[in-house]
Amino acid sequence: MTGVYLQDIPLSEAQARLWRELQALGLDGLLGVEEIALDENALGRVLAEPAWAAICSPHYHAAAMDGFALRAEQTNGASSTQPVTLQFGSQAVYVDTGDPLPEWANAVVPIEQVEALDENGQPSPTPRSPVGVRLRAALTPWSHVRPMGEDLVATQLVLAAGQVLRPVDLGALAASGHTRLRVARRPRVAIIPTGTELIPVGQTPQRGDIIEYNSIVLAAQVRNWGGQPMRHSIVPDRFEEICAAVQAAIEENDLVLLNAGSSAGSEDFSARVVETVGKLLVHGVAVRPGHPVILGVAPRRQGAGWALIVGVPGYPVSAALTGEIFVEPLLAAWQGRLAQQPQEVEAQLTRKLVSPPGDDDFVRVVAGRVGGRLVAAPLSRGAGVITSLVRADGIVVVPRGEQGLEAGARVRVRLYRTPAELERTIFVIGSHDMSLDLLAQFLEGRQRRLVSANVGSLGGLVALRRGEAHLAGSHLLDPQTGEYNRAYIEQYLPGVKVRRIGWVGREQGLMVAAGNPKRIVGLTDLVREDVRFINRQRGAGTRVLLDYHLQQLALDPQQVRGYEQEEYTHLAVAAAVASGRADCGLGVTAAAQALGLDFVPLFQERYELIIPQTDEATTALLQPLFDLMHEKTFRQAVAALPGYDTAIMGEEVV
Amino acid sequence: MTGVYLQDIPLSEAQARLWRELQALGLDGLLGVEEIALDENALGRVLAEPAWAAICSPHYHAAAMDGFALRAEQTNGASSTQPVTLQFGSQAVYVDTGDPLPEWANAVVPIEQVEALDENGQPSPTPRSPVGVRLRAALTPWSHVRPMGEDLVATQLVLAAGQVLRPVDLGALAASGHTRLRVARRPRVAIIPTGTELIPVGQTPQRGDIIEYNSIVLAAQVRNWGGQPMRHSIVPDRFEEICAAVQAAIEENDLVLLNAGSSAGSEDFSARVVETVGKLLVHGVAVRPGHPVILGVAPRRQGAGWALIVGVPGYPVSAALTGEIFVEPLLAAWQGRLAQQPQEVEAQLTRKLVSPPGDDDFVRVVAGRVGGRLVAAPLSRGAGVITSLVRADGIVVVPRGEQGLEAGARVRVRLYRTPAELERTIFVIGSHDMSLDLLAQFLEGRQRRLVSANVGSLGGLVALRRGEAHLAGSHLLDPQTGEYNRAYIEQYLPGVKVRRIGWVGREQGLMVAAGNPKRIVGLTDLVREDVRFINRQRGAGTRVLLDYHLQQLALDPQQVRGYEQEEYTHLAVAAAVASGRADCGLGVTAAAQALGLDFVPLFQERYELIIPQTDEATTALLQPLFDLMHEKTFRQAVAALPGYDTAIMGEEVV
Repeated sequence: MTGVYLQDIPLSEAQARLWRELQALGLDGLLGVEEIALDENALGRVLAEPAWAAICSPHYHAAAMDGFALRAEQTNGASSTQPVTLQFGSQAVYVDTGDPLPEWANAVVPIEQVEALDENGQPSPTPRSPVGVRLRAALTPWSHVRPMGEDLVATQLVLAAGQVLRPVDLGALAASGHTRLRVARRPRVAIIPTGTELIPVGQTPQRGDIIEYNSIVLAAQVRNWGGQPMRHSIVPDRFEEICAAVQAAIEENDLVLLNAGSSAGSEDFSARVVETVGKLLVHGVAVRPGHPVILGVAPRRQGAGWALIVGVPGYPVSAALTGEIFVEPLLAAWQGRLAQQPQEVEAQLTRKLVSPPGDDDFVRVVAGRVGGRLVAAPLSRGAGVITSLVRADGIVVVPRGEQGLEAGARVRVRLYRTPAELERTIFVIGSHDMSLDLLAQFLEGRQRRLVSANVGSLGGLVALRRGEAHLAGSHLLDPQTGEYNRAYIEQYLPGVKVRRIGWVGREQGLMVAAGNPKRIVGLTDLVREDVRFINRQRGAGTRVLLDYHLQQLALDPQQVRGYEQEEYTHLAVAAAVASGRADCGLGVTAAAQALGLDFVPLFQERYELIIPQTDEATTALLQPLFDLMHEKTFRQAVAALPGYDTAIMGEEVV
Repeated sequence: MTGVYLQDIPLSEAQARLWRELQALGLDGLLGVEEIALDENALGRVLAEPAWAAICSPHYHAAAMDGFALRAEQTNGASSTQPVTLQFGSQAVYVDTGDPLPEWANAVVPIEQVEALDENGQPSPTPRSPVGVRLRAALTPWSHVRPMGEDLVATQLVLAAGQVLRPVDLGALAASGHTRLRVARRPRVAIIPTGTELIPVGQTPQRGDIIEYNSIVLAAQVRNWGGQPMRHSIVPDRFEEICAAVQAAIEENDLVLLNAGSSAGSEDFSARVVETVGKLLVHGVAVRPGHPVILGVAPRRQGAGWALIVGVPGYPVSAALTGEIFVEPLLAAWQGRLAQQPQEVEAQLTRKLVSPPGDDDFVRVVAGRVGGRLVAAPLSRGAGVITSLVRADGIVVVPRGEQGLEAGARVRVRLYRTPAELERTIFVIGSHDMSLDLLAQFLEGRQRRLVSANVGSLGGLVALRRGEAHLAGSHLLDPQTGEYNRAYIEQYLPGVKVRRIGWVGREQGLMVAAGNPKRIVGLTDLVREDVRFINRQRGAGTRVLLDYHLQQLALDPQQVRGYEQEEYTHLAVAAAVASGRADCGLGVTAAAQALGLDFVPLFQERYELIIPQTDEATTALLQPLFDLMHEKTFRQAVAALPGYDTAIMGEEVV
């Protein structure tokens, strides 16, 4: 092992080290040039050389209208009272748009501006081959003519080298006389997944198996960026086998992505593999997530030259971000194009972010416009949570040296979407309900994107007060009055005008393992010694409901085993029960049914949408949501969820 | 012929008519669903159905770190002074990141946070299989564990229908247990070029031949938008042949793009073809450019169902815009995705725009930031000028009912580029010089985009005064002093601080046909009866030069045949001479040489860059331009242009 063994170095230093090495090896620019046909398959390829016009376009003087070609001088003096008549054939000939002008002609009169005459001076029955052509206005030379070179003059620059070819570019290249194109050779990229625990997509995972999909994500990224990906089959964690696979890939590729084994665990061979086949440049980059990145180069044994090896971390978010940070700029340089520059917008952070000061921290956020402000809400920080990248609207980079950012801080968001998409985003926060997933699906067809954050009912009201969301889902029971939400709104949103809209009625009860092996029939069973409970977080409506009923039954929460174990959604509670981590948890019927659990119904509760009264733009944004409340197909889809009732949906509480 | 024969109807009405018909035929949504493998080839496909998680991710409780799995309760009370030691095997087992936790464990302690001990309580030589594991801090349950369902809980919505699949989406689908994907069938689109005058790319065009490239542009567009294009070979303008080709295409495609013949010329058969094979819905849409658009539907004779036919106008800009306006939304609907929404920015128009009030006018513009303002400069309006689409940064739509827009008007620009690209755009205006093409090419590699507008030297100074460009190229001779530019700057930019930077010295002279058949040797030949001249526009430095010398020689411009014929660039003048439209014109050596003309050198002139002193941002923007002035490879490339001298390049005139 060398001194580069998993010692995180700053991102900028890792990149500098990489590019110095690539420069020394002559691998910092175009890998090669190839000639391809000029057709739609050239789309997305990168011009390797500037394209200069080989011919003029048009390459002759062309009629710009259907009409008669003539000499403008012969129309001098023509007026409505003093028309001029030209002889068809010798003085005027018919041309269609695009036809070349006769050598002697220097203008075109559109057919609808003349009278085509027969030999008697009457309207000709063959207006495109008459005997005479009568004009009632003079023409200036070159009227209705596209002179040679109007679009492009030979030798002019058509497109600069480095242009990623778009449809219209192909047209301009053809127009200027090009028939073949010299473009950058596509970089060849091998992707080698390693790991004894990996199984390919399509195989049913057993406990401990990990579905191998990083190679698909990396291959798709490579393709998006103009490279040619080649996915290798899974290599088990055996040093010699990995070495052999990498050595073979080096011979035929420009870049080898070795995933994973880049950390320092007992089966993390990647760094040793790179040292064996070539030269290790970097092991560990101070970025989060994804720090165990490996960079190395290795010579070909059969062929000439070197290949680059990137050891990609195994966590899916780390893997995808390693692609964006290291692979995209490489593929750009190797094709002679500019690296992609993500669009940036400024937004306000909804929550405080704590960041390790030694790392460049890449935080996934969702973003949208709430009450006129663009806000960015951090998503899960876990490197294993690929849905955080799927849901992300962009990335906020907390740079090395910063300990984090305060709530409300202005941040730059590197966007994955267009700003227009952010404008059609509805933020819903608060209590999780399965109907929100259905709502998201239905809104997609109505030009709206639903982004939901599950922070519990109370968390939702607090978020509304801070202006962080358009609406909140809430089912907070007031133990005093038995009414839902009103007391909490008065307490947490004092003076804020909000609308309370009925959404669904739903059954709450205990989710238990299939067959109910522990014979749990009510809340009193929760204090049994052999019963492990899984709770919802403080502020969740379900938690309020639990606490209320425990109190009614005079049961001490301290006696409930697992009371302090918190999950943030119904489904997460159900998953905890399904996995055997707990024996029961309080939640809705649908969640139990989704995971094949048994359900002990206990209470019926009311779930409402709380919507602050806001500006016109927000009203327009939310309109499709209100429309859906009255749409039969949507109501039916929600009512079909087990334990759900849509009777109150769309009713405003006043 | 029916009543829909080339009667332009408003765009909104044409679209409404089209979608009503498609709805009636059941062709307004998904064409079909197909199942494909989940791999990188699914990239860009559109999900036909919502994807719900089939399994949880992780689907078991997984170690989040390399370390020892244990029960958190057994670490209670551990501290630096009161460590707790667990028995390896029964109380603590080693796990790598991603490994499943044993059933009995509920936490992981990272390996670097423990002491691995041997049987004597000394550091174990096998730290991953020691005898004891000593902890000096207590753990809370589920520390360093990724609980089952952390990322995704089974039944949760992973992606909504209509999602265009990105690399990370493929990962999330695999993680949630998907192995095959149900996606929208790709719409099949036939593209049939028609026209006897057309020749395919690769064939050398003769006078009157038109290189057929619209089909390439349309095919590339279709591919970009997710369709499967099929390019037909060129069909000559014969009614029966076109009918046969269209009928065959209808059988196998969802959409037939018939290009062109959509106007009302003698060989414009498209409308009749559509009426013959099916039903003509629209002939003529009030958009500019591109109004002779045809929309129709036709039944299949062999197979079931109908296909849509779009008659696409022949001019390349019209054809490409017809694709954007009509074809993209269709392909979006047929794949169940949202139509692309171009990003829009607000900019100030640099020039007055005159627009036909009856049309929606799609004006191509270049855009960039000049002196803090985003400005949009209209490009050539000609429907034949495909370079206007290549160069366009976006489109300004002058809506039906408006007669045009004033200079300085605030307009919405539908962008073809990201706003970030606009920020790195250098606007140069004024006199055209061939070195600017070279400059554009060299700046590409330096993160700058050069956009040049050729309005002559004087026009450039006026544009600088209006804040429409970052710099102007100028070679305006002052007849009084013999000095270049100074007097004009004082007159046209009074009180404006500008820098004058030397750029090139260049030879001006008369461009004549090869072999100089008319024996033209100087300006005195311009008044000969047999000599046709082609002039530059008023305000051009070359025009000033000509007028100055005509005056010196006491020659009357009235006697110069063609004096009133104006072109805007040296190359356009050269093209006029090369085509025989004129016998000579004044210009630079390089232009003559580019088109194989002879050149009669007359004068040496000085071309300068005029740069207003501006803000820091502009200084940074222009820095690469200043760098290039001192770079050897660039100076050599310019000096290699015939008649060019770079001695003055980069010298500031004070």
